[in-house]
Amino acid sequence: MNSNMNATLRHSLLAAALVGALALGTTVSHAADPLPSWNDGPAKQAIVDFVRATTAKGSPKFVPPAERIATFDNDGTLWCEQPMYFQFIFALDRVKALAPQHPEWKEKEPFASLLKGDLKEALAGGVRSMLEIVMATHAGMTTEEFEQTVKDWLATAKHPQFNRPYTECVYQPMLELLAYLRANGFKTFIVSGGGIEFMRPWTERVYGIPPEQVIGSSIKAQYEMRDGKPVLVRLPEINFIDDKAGKPFGIDEHIGRRPVAAFGNSDGDQQMLEWTQGGGGARLMMLVHHDDATREFAYGADSKIGAFSDALMAEANKNGWTVISMKNDWKTVFAFEK
Amino acid sequence: MNSNMNATLRHSLLAAALVGALALGTTVSHAADPLPSWNDGPAKQAIVDFVRATTAKGSPKFVPPAERIATFDNDGTLWCEQPMYFQFIFALDRVKALAPQHPEWKEKEPFASLLKGDLKEALAGGVRSMLEIVMATHAGMTTEEFEQTVKDWLATAKHPQFNRPYTECVYQPMLELLAYLRANGFKTFIVSGGGIEFMRPWTERVYGIPPEQVIGSSIKAQYEMRDGKPVLVRLPEINFIDDKAGKPFGIDEHIGRRPVAAFGNSDGDQQMLEWTQGGGGARLMMLVHHDDATREFAYGADSKIGAFSDALMAEANKNGWTVISMKNDWKTVFAFEK
Repeated sequence: MNSNMNATLRHSLLAAALVGALALGTTVSHAADPLPSWNDGPAKQAIVDFVRATTAKGSPKFVPPAERIATFDNDGTLWCEQPMYFQFIFALDRVKALAPQHPEWKEKEPFASLLKGDLKEALAGGVRSMLEIVMATHAGMTTEEFEQTVKDWLATAKHPQFNRPYTECVYQPMLELLAYLRANGFKTFIVSGGGIEFMRPWTERVYGIPPEQVIGSSIKAQYEMRDGKPVLVRLPEINFIDDKAGKPFGIDEHIGRRPVAAFGNSDGDQQMLEWTQGGGGARLMMLVHHDDATREFAYGADSKIGAFSDALMAEANKNGWTVISMKNDWKTVFAFEK
Repeated sequence: MNSNMNATLRHSLLAAALVGALALGTTVSHAADPLPSWNDGPAKQAIVDFVRATTAKGSPKFVPPAERIATFDNDGTLWCEQPMYFQFIFALDRVKALAPQHPEWKEKEPFASLLKGDLKEALAGGVRSMLEIVMATHAGMTTEEFEQTVKDWLATAKHPQFNRPYTECVYQPMLELLAYLRANGFKTFIVSGGGIEFMRPWTERVYGIPPEQVIGSSIKAQYEMRDGKPVLVRLPEINFIDDKAGKPFGIDEHIGRRPVAAFGNSDGDQQMLEWTQGGGGARLMMLVHHDDATREFAYGADSKIGAFSDALMAEANKNGWTVISMKNDWKTVFAFEK
């Protein structure tokens, strides 16, 4: 063996080692449980069965990779939504921060009550009051300024009960589910009633979902030149409400394909699950049920936020949708519990 | 050397051969011209320089893969738009096909003139007449029914001059550009004034652009249950016009990132190119100029369709946007020429 052949052999052995390592890696990841925070039970089984049926070659329910679309509600499905939608807490914090620039708010509802700390009185006007608070804090700036404000808030604000950044109040089992679906060729989308531009600054980092796969409610924006630079200025005018019957339209408009899997937790998700199931073939529809007052919150039919009505439960039973019991199906709720 | 080692050696050599083949493959694809239908010149050079600068490791203009967003207008940029927008030809054909179900059209403009073959009189009402024709042919059915109608039309309709299916009237150099960008980690999007649901049934097959990467004008749709099946029924009501200042908003709403490259051909694309350039760093803005009466069409400032005004040309010069001369920069226009 001359030195040249020796070098070839050395490279060959290195290559073989690499190939071996890759093969070993594959074996290990197949053997490992991709959903370690899920207890064994019907919910976990439904997920694993669905993924196997839609991805195994030769399976009668095989779904081509391009059609593997999975949609997720956000509030109450991927992250916590109690004691209030986090975006609304953001809006309240912004009212306080912006108050010095708005002396007129001292006399004007709902801001006056809000600044006095009387949330109940501030929201006495119902949806109209909430909308005024949202528009005053979400419009009037450029899209880039708003994005920065969201990032700054998330960097310091903490959940009142868990005392953690809001972006840590995400459900560990759902993070595993997102990763498991993506590892099997699914494209994961968020389809939320929350603001699209409130979610996009952090969904890629936290969920691995890039901005172009986030669908949400939105306000209009106007294109203009400011000092020779093009900007989009956010206007206090609703563009789209991505909730209930709006979800199938939002999905059609943004994705243009029907999902094969959809995940929600409240009445606002019913139409998304119906629309998903309506496509026929292998489908997975799941609803997170918040029944864990110890580790998170227990709420359902009577909740003002994220209501899971008796009618929705009846639909789930009738249509074969899987209800995920947070208490029984999840070994871990939040990563910070550990 | 025992037989076991022998087997190891054989595997090693096989692995080495594979590694070698892969390396060779890389070299070959680097050497081959990814843009064979482009003549050497400033336009082709601008594309190659941009891709190298944004993708080479260590380049000061390197753009991370997730941010490699490229947006393309469709009519006049990816496919032909003369003698009329193809979607409008589709609408005219649909009026004829639907006429038996609409006896009232015999007395009602713009349909009456259209059915008599008098297009000029039918369009005398300008935008309002066009909108009536579009709504009568694009609304009132489910999204799935509309998709099928588009597919059926494309399967038989032919371009009046080229006598080819419309989906063959696509620019070969732009197909190569799309593939070249994707091979370099760019995500390609359509951002067109055309109807989003008119494009999606064929963009994946023809351009390699999946439905979720198509942005366009749209009408509203209503979610409802028909015979227990969920459907979206298209309504005769504008939802969004994806043209001029609408394009940056459409991009922000659908993608949530600013493109680093944008391609258009008319006044309707100016704001998309401004918005792209406004992001700073390495950017590529290009405009197709239709100056080839022999192989395609020659039209510009005075065209009713796809106007490329003197003001746009001035903007292009001022901002350093590259104007692609169809006549000089393209070796081949359509694949069927060959």
